[in-house]
Parts: sequence; structure tokens; C-alpha cells
Amino acid sequence: MKAVRFENQTISVVDLPLPEIGGNEALVKILMAGICATDIAIFNGYAGFTGIPGHEFVGIVEQCPKSPELVGKRVVADINCGCGRCPACLARDPRHCPERQTIGIRGRDGVFAEYCAIPVENLHVVPEPVETLCAVFAEPLAAALEIAQQLHIGHHTRIAVIGDGKLGILAALGLNHYSSRVLLAGRYPQKLAIAERQGVATVCLDSKDAVAAVCARLGQFDITVDATGNPEGINLAIALTRPEGTVVVKTTSHRPSQIDLASVAVNELRLIGSRCGDLSLALRFLENRWLDVKPLVDAVYPLTDFTEAFSHALCKDSLKVLLAVE
Amino acid sequence: MKAVRFENQTISVVDLPLPEIGGNEALVKILMAGICATDIAIFNGYAGFTGIPGHEFVGIVEQCPKSPELVGKRVVADINCGCGRCPACLARDPRHCPERQTIGIRGRDGVFAEYCAIPVENLHVVPEPVETLCAVFAEPLAAALEIAQQLHIGHHTRIAVIGDGKLGILAALGLNHYSSRVLLAGRYPQKLAIAERQGVATVCLDSKDAVAAVCARLGQFDITVDATGNPEGINLAIALTRPEGTVVVKTTSHRPSQIDLASVAVNELRLIGSRCGDLSLALRFLENRWLDVKPLVDAVYPLTDFTEAFSHALCKDSLKVLLAVE
Repeated sequence: MKAVRFENQTISVVDLPLPEIGGNEALVKILMAGICATDIAIFNGYAGFTGIPGHEFVGIVEQCPKSPELVGKRVVADINCGCGRCPACLARDPRHCPERQTIGIRGRDGVFAEYCAIPVENLHVVPEPVETLCAVFAEPLAAALEIAQQLHIGHHTRIAVIGDGKLGILAALGLNHYSSRVLLAGRYPQKLAIAERQGVATVCLDSKDAVAAVCARLGQFDITVDATGNPEGINLAIALTRPEGTVVVKTTSHRPSQIDLASVAVNELRLIGSRCGDLSLALRFLENRWLDVKPLVDAVYPLTDFTEAFSHALCKDSLKVLLAVE
Repeated sequence: MKAVRFENQTISVVDLPLPEIGGNEALVKILMAGICATDIAIFNGYAGFTGIPGHEFVGIVEQCPKSPELVGKRVVADINCGCGRCPACLARDPRHCPERQTIGIRGRDGVFAEYCAIPVENLHVVPEPVETLCAVFAEPLAAALEIAQQLHIGHHTRIAVIGDGKLGILAALGLNHYSSRVLLAGRYPQKLAIAERQGVATVCLDSKDAVAAVCARLGQFDITVDATGNPEGINLAIALTRPEGTVVVKTTSHRPSQIDLASVAVNELRLIGSRCGDLSLALRFLENRWLDVKPLVDAVYPLTDFTEAFSHALCKDSLKVLLAVE
């Protein structure tokens, strides 16, 4: 099969044998995959990964000895594969299994390939009405919605999402379902417009007036989400949050952040890390059309043009770059 | 009156007129005051304070037009003085009033002086059985106990307190009342012994074996308290905390911390800032002798020897240095 390979900050598209599946795995033929900021971070050294990257996908189950009824079904998948024996796994939360593998990120090949072996228990069948182009957003949308699973959000909770990348827009669109007071702050009018057209208030930090308007709200948000993808973003998030408010840490950078912890202590802020979420919740949002992810698609490339697709994804003003694998 | 003055990283002991009291204030004659790590941070530039420092004290009310029944009473005081009108103040939490003054820290002279003007509503009468030498710990003990007011702590909650300074020892002694699984990690056997003699497990990170024993418990604590007073301490605290566990940020340094936020996001950790606490709770601990603070006293100096006292407090292996003002 054709597959992408990351090794020492080089990309190659190679021919590999089909993956062999274990007794608890399904062989999934990839239909479509998405390039994520984490893939870029991995390419730049985050997580020290070598192998086939990629963790956002939609596929068709081709082989599945354990659950033959899944063959032919369109699926997405949770990306964390636990040991099955530790306390986290026994509590059905392999996201925090200390021995976990993560598809395309840690210890396990990913989905930028024609086929991928995936544990059966990780699979979610995609509801018929959800187009493949939308279902490929299930994983990042789940990560965005995870915020509302971790924190209580009321109708009047004042939320600022900082960063108008893919995750920031998905977080703003998702949280807009829980609170009427979501503000998305970013730098790209055309990206902010995607959220604005779906009812989210936005501010573009491209003028002194706009920055002053945001600065007038320092210390006023109940919840601030750092989705900048930038190690410095956390400090604006901290400054915008009210005393005893919460900062959601979504950025995973391979560089450390410089943080003034005295302001965290004095204002008794809570910083909460937030990672992967529940794909069944994301599929429910997509099936009910509670938000529209299609405007986030910037381009679709064939898998064999991965290098061009990745260059596109590296552009600062790009949004979601997809790979059509068929 | 004699008073200490901080200005541009210089210390002077000066003669000043008695403070004039407003209608809501009491004139308090200081009996004893404590030098805190925050005073050292202020001397080094934290909070940009100029004036009379000091916020830990026991005094006698000499004048109090608003509540004459307090005259002659021995008191301690909450250090935050709110505007009385903002939402935080109306919710009786001047700790988070945006216009607040803080005794000896922000906008208001402190207690390293013979007299201090203090808002009546900040005063707490010290119960008769509590010696002055112990009552002077009410403020830092309240800050230590604040952790148990912010977080639910059960009998089996695994807690690591990092740092065997005054706040670390008080936190370990206080939290030892809530959980049977408190570990205090530090570098000074004689400091750790104070907590150990009161039933707290301790580990001294002065040997490879001890460090290895602590490293074997990385990711295993439900709650980790960074009381190192050091901008780098947070990273050991983060490493010791289990996924979805909580790191309590007690350190207020004037230097920023370098933090790997990716591990916070991936492990979905919570970092929570923690500051001042409830002095009535601390006085209750002292009155009931639920812990013994006396072994924390390193030395008592007269106020006029403040420079020597401060030099003593600056020594890395010092504990609480007190000033006897009478």
C-alpha cells in the first residue's frame, strides 16, 4: 500500500505491505484523512514519533474477525489504544493509560496510508447522513467539545477562545451551543468569518482599536481557551480570565511556555489541560447539523501528493487540508 | 513611631508619625510580626511596593471609634482591603477586589512598625489560649489551609508537598489533618523533621536514592503542592501528578516559570492558583492545638534590628524569623 512516513523531519511517500491485524483489530481502508496541527508539531519533533503519521480519518472496515458485522461500515476512531489492564483502562479511559499507544502519534502507525490496523473497540460507525468530508472532523471536533465535558458551562458563562486556527474555530462553534457569550479572537478575517456566520461573536486583533477593545476586557472572562498553538498564547489567556476563572490549555507545543505563575497564584486561576474527547458526541453534533464544518476545508489532495498537502497545511493562513486516499 | 521602610531594594528603620485612622479603621499596636517569603520577593521587586512592608502580625487594638469594644483586644488581620462596592467585595471576598489594597504589599503600609492602621472588618480577635508567638502564624497558616478550602481532600488522597520552607511545612501539617497520605519533599533534614515529628511522611532529596524513590512515584499523586518558592519547582510538581490530577500553585516569584504545557494538556492536569486563606480557620487550628507551629520559629529580633533579622530570613536554611515590636 501507499503510505506517508515521517523520520527525522523528512517526509517520504513509500510502498509498504498491508498492516497485519491482531485478534482485537480491524483492517480499515482509509477514505479520507485530515492534517492536524499535531501532525505539524510531530514533524517538528513533538512526541519523538517515527513512522506513518495521521490520526484524523474516515475509513471502511475491510476485515474484522472479532466483529464481522462491522465489515463494510464507514468508521472513525478514538486515537488512544490502552493496555486494557491498568486502572485507567479498567475505568474505560485509555486516554490516560500510561502504556497507551496513540494512532499516528505514539508507538502505532497512523492513517496517512491506504490501510490502517485499528483496535475494534476504538471504532465508531459514522451515521449515514454524515458526509465523509464532515465525518473526518469527528476527532478534532471531539477534542474541541471535550472542554464542555470537563467544565460546567452555563448560558451566561463568558468564554473567550483565543486563536482562529481549526481547533479554535471548532471550539468556538462547539461552545456556542452551551453559552450565548462566546467570543473568538484571532488574526484572520476570513477564518473568523466562518464562526461569525454561525452566530459566534468574533474580534480580529489586526488593529490597535480591536486590541484595545479586547484589553478593556482583561480579567473579565469566566473561561478562556488557549487554542493559539503558540507557547506565548497562554499569557493572553491568563490576562483575560477573571479571578478564580479557568484557562483551558489546548496548545501542545514542543517548546515550553514562559508563564508568570504569581498572577495565577494571586488571582487563584485554574489552568486545565484538555486533550481528546468523545467521538460519539462529535458525531451527534455532525448528524444533527448543530454546526457546519465544511467551510473549514481549505483543500483536498490525493495521498500521493502528501508533500504538497503538508506544505499547504504549514501556511499560517491555511485551514483544514484533507487527503483523499481512494 | 519606629518603622521599617522598603524603597528601591534598600531597607531603612525610620521615625514616622503615628498613622491616622479613618472611620472604618482601628489603630493597632503591633506586638509581634513575621517575615515572610513574600516580603523577600517584594524586596527583590515583586509587586513594585514602596513603604512599610509586613503583613503577618499580632497586635493590640489601641483606638477603634467604630467598634470600641475591640480596644485592648489581641488581634490578627486579613491582609486584603477591598473597595466595598465591587462584586467581589459584595460577595465578601475582598481578596479578589480589583481595587484592593493589601497590607504591606500593595497600596497600604504594613506591620513592620510600632503601629498600623487596619480596617476593622479585617480584624480577628485571637482566642485567649493562643500564645502571641503562635498567633503570628495565623496568616501563613490560613494561606496553607486555603488548599483544603479549594479542593476536596479525602482520607486517601495522595498529596505531595514540594518545598520544606515555612509555607511547605505549614501546608503539610495542615493537609495532614485531611488526608493520611501526605508526603513532604524537601532538602533540609532539620526542617523536614518538624513535620515528621507531627506525623507527616517526608523525603529529603539530598541523595540519589531519595531522588530515585521520588521519581519512582512520578505521575502518582492526586494533588501536588508547589511550595518551593522557585520558578522551576512547578515542573517537578507537574511530573509527580497523575493524569487529571491537580497541581496547587503557591509560589509567587517575580521571575516567570518555563512550563511544558504539552504535558499539562496531554495529561489533562489542573493547575490551581492558591493565595490567602481564612484566618478564623487558622485560629481554630491553633486554639485546638491541631498542629504545633512553635518549632518553625528560628529567631526573634527587636524591630530596630530589622536589617539583621532580614539577613537571617534571607538564609536558605532559615525558618520563621519574628520581630518583637514592644
